[in-house]
Amino acid sequence: MSLANGAGAASLAAEFKTELTENILPFWLKHGLDRQAGGMTTALDRRGEVIDTDKSMWFQGRAGWVFSTAYREVEQRPEYLEAAASCIDFIEAHGFDTDGRMFFRVTREGKPVIKRLRYVFSEAFAAMAMAAYSRAAGKPEYAGKARAIFDRIGQIVATPGTLMPKFDPETRPSQGFALSMIMLAVAQELRGAQPGDSGFYNAYIDRAVAHIEGNFMDREHRCVLEQVGPNGEHQFDHFEGRMLNPGHSIEASWFIMNEARLRGGDRHFTELGAQILDWMWDWGWDKEYGGIIYYRDALNKPGSEYWHDMKFWWPQTEAIISTLMAYAETGESRFAERFDAIYEWTTRLFPDREYGEWFGYFHRDGRRSTDLKGNMYKGPFHIPRMYIECYGIASRMGGK
Amino acid sequence: MSLANGAGAASLAAEFKTELTENILPFWLKHGLDRQAGGMTTALDRRGEVIDTDKSMWFQGRAGWVFSTAYREVEQRPEYLEAAASCIDFIEAHGFDTDGRMFFRVTREGKPVIKRLRYVFSEAFAAMAMAAYSRAAGKPEYAGKARAIFDRIGQIVATPGTLMPKFDPETRPSQGFALSMIMLAVAQELRGAQPGDSGFYNAYIDRAVAHIEGNFMDREHRCVLEQVGPNGEHQFDHFEGRMLNPGHSIEASWFIMNEARLRGGDRHFTELGAQILDWMWDWGWDKEYGGIIYYRDALNKPGSEYWHDMKFWWPQTEAIISTLMAYAETGESRFAERFDAIYEWTTRLFPDREYGEWFGYFHRDGRRSTDLKGNMYKGPFHIPRMYIECYGIASRMGGK
Repeated sequence: MSLANGAGAASLAAEFKTELTENILPFWLKHGLDRQAGGMTTALDRRGEVIDTDKSMWFQGRAGWVFSTAYREVEQRPEYLEAAASCIDFIEAHGFDTDGRMFFRVTREGKPVIKRLRYVFSEAFAAMAMAAYSRAAGKPEYAGKARAIFDRIGQIVATPGTLMPKFDPETRPSQGFALSMIMLAVAQELRGAQPGDSGFYNAYIDRAVAHIEGNFMDREHRCVLEQVGPNGEHQFDHFEGRMLNPGHSIEASWFIMNEARLRGGDRHFTELGAQILDWMWDWGWDKEYGGIIYYRDALNKPGSEYWHDMKFWWPQTEAIISTLMAYAETGESRFAERFDAIYEWTTRLFPDREYGEWFGYFHRDGRRSTDLKGNMYKGPFHIPRMYIECYGIASRMGGK
Repeated sequence: MSLANGAGAASLAAEFKTELTENILPFWLKHGLDRQAGGMTTALDRRGEVIDTDKSMWFQGRAGWVFSTAYREVEQRPEYLEAAASCIDFIEAHGFDTDGRMFFRVTREGKPVIKRLRYVFSEAFAAMAMAAYSRAAGKPEYAGKARAIFDRIGQIVATPGTLMPKFDPETRPSQGFALSMIMLAVAQELRGAQPGDSGFYNAYIDRAVAHIEGNFMDREHRCVLEQVGPNGEHQFDHFEGRMLNPGHSIEASWFIMNEARLRGGDRHFTELGAQILDWMWDWGWDKEYGGIIYYRDALNKPGSEYWHDMKFWWPQTEAIISTLMAYAETGESRFAERFDAIYEWTTRLFPDREYGEWFGYFHRDGRRSTDLKGNMYKGPFHIPRMYIECYGIASRMGGK
């Protein structure tokens, strides 16, 4: 159905809810949830068979968030809350090393396999999950646990030498876009669970958005950079300094537009998010084959990553959320047209109508690279989050 | 020309030499060699323009080896020796951290950018370069320097806790194929530079080959595994434990066949190398589109790496060397047929007849992914090494 041609928000909302509750979440409850050892297994083949018994710690948090939020915002099915609790219990039992840092990958039973010293994403997803679960289950103690992890992330990031830098900090001091962006989303989630601390979180979010705006947005090249110097300096002599990840910055664009809505309207946030979407849609949308391409180079030089032109599931889901939200928040018809284009292209290519859920990896021209349903990076997160967020947007547009 | 149909080794040898000395090496001398700061820059676009000024420390060693060996084995052009000296001087000036470990990536001038704690490949390539240079330039002191690095690698590998393990060593002790394989090639190179120590290197190589045979070769699945447990145990419950890299093990196959030749004949080594080639050709050769595919899964499950079906330049070059060497060493016609197939397919697709050198990255169906000529992984190594090795094989077949 076509939003630009006046399709009812009601039928869109119903479609989003059905896909979420009848296709995506049941697939992971049936095949991914580990009813013996607890937590969520994500490495599944097309039919849902487990092909790697290790568990991703990111996905314990991500699935904990998804199932808590689906319960609270879409449908109060008890199995959603049970799945969320299983993931969160697994995090608390097996997620943390003795130094307080979290693991990246553990065995089925929870023994450590990989700990990454460079990132705090396991921590960020754990905090999001616990904050969402505290609201869904009505257990405020989990908001306190989420806040403790949030504060620990702040300490890790602020203590020099704790996070291992990717590049030598003397020769090439640099900062990545991902950290500001994810912490913005974590703070939004925590504010929902701790409304009494809204002032604190609002100020945190203001700083995060200003940091993104001041450091990563390049007005000359009309793009959002993934890596810059400590004060936003260009690092254009190097692959990483020119690298654009349109799906990633489009994800941030809806975090920022959503912040405007959550505050009951904030014109600067709405315009900023819409601007990022406008810029990065131009870089990302593949005019020849459709879909959002993985990487671009800010100076149009060849990038170093050879999968640069692939179509992954998640840049598409983020563009679907962002275009729908931008249309809902601004009423501008170009966003409705883009939503129609990306939603139609994505739902024609990615869903597996035979075994359920979505494929994850396609080549630029739409040829499928693998029929894998999940691994340490694909699992119950971007796709169900898209349906949850879009169900909310379409419902608020009058489709509930 | 077709080897299986009786094409003369002489015309093949001439073609290999011309491509090496008129196309590949001039491209890197013109565009990559840094005549101001020294050393070799590898991040070049299609025309040879530098698109990342950082230097790969692997490639200082790899280029040092290539230019030294081209000088000694193909043609004594002074500029080859000068280029090798520039790379080796750059290694000695900028390659080593204060703890004796080497960097992975440095700035144009040699300041550290990235040091990898998990690998000793920068060290291995540095040792190979210095050993080759000592023979080419007639400077035995570089053989001593190479041996010092070789011994240091041995210490690093033997001292627990020095190399950072990829997986938790208590939960999942594991070993990778790459280390045994590269050290085999380093020992071969050092033996050439220190013939008085042949007994030492022969024993080292015997152990390395026995280690590969005893730990990584899976006779049941007729494949070479990339990662196994400390005693060769299967780790088939995990993506990494099932992962096959046909180009990588085909590279090892010619190291082992070459060892038979260097010892004046060793039937076990010849048969072992040919067996690895037979097995991994079956896994790697793409019957639909041609070429050697990047990854396969030992149980034919979907792998986790989404570029698994791409065609990179280097698995092709290794298969070209290995099939030609296997034919020269065994006379079996299937190896001549495979050489014809892979050489024809590769030289039709990869060389850039307009700007020189080769493209590096194609999709499975032969669509080019990028027109990049080099980055931190592609530079003057696999392609010129292929021409050097194949020139040697064809010459020995009577084509000189």
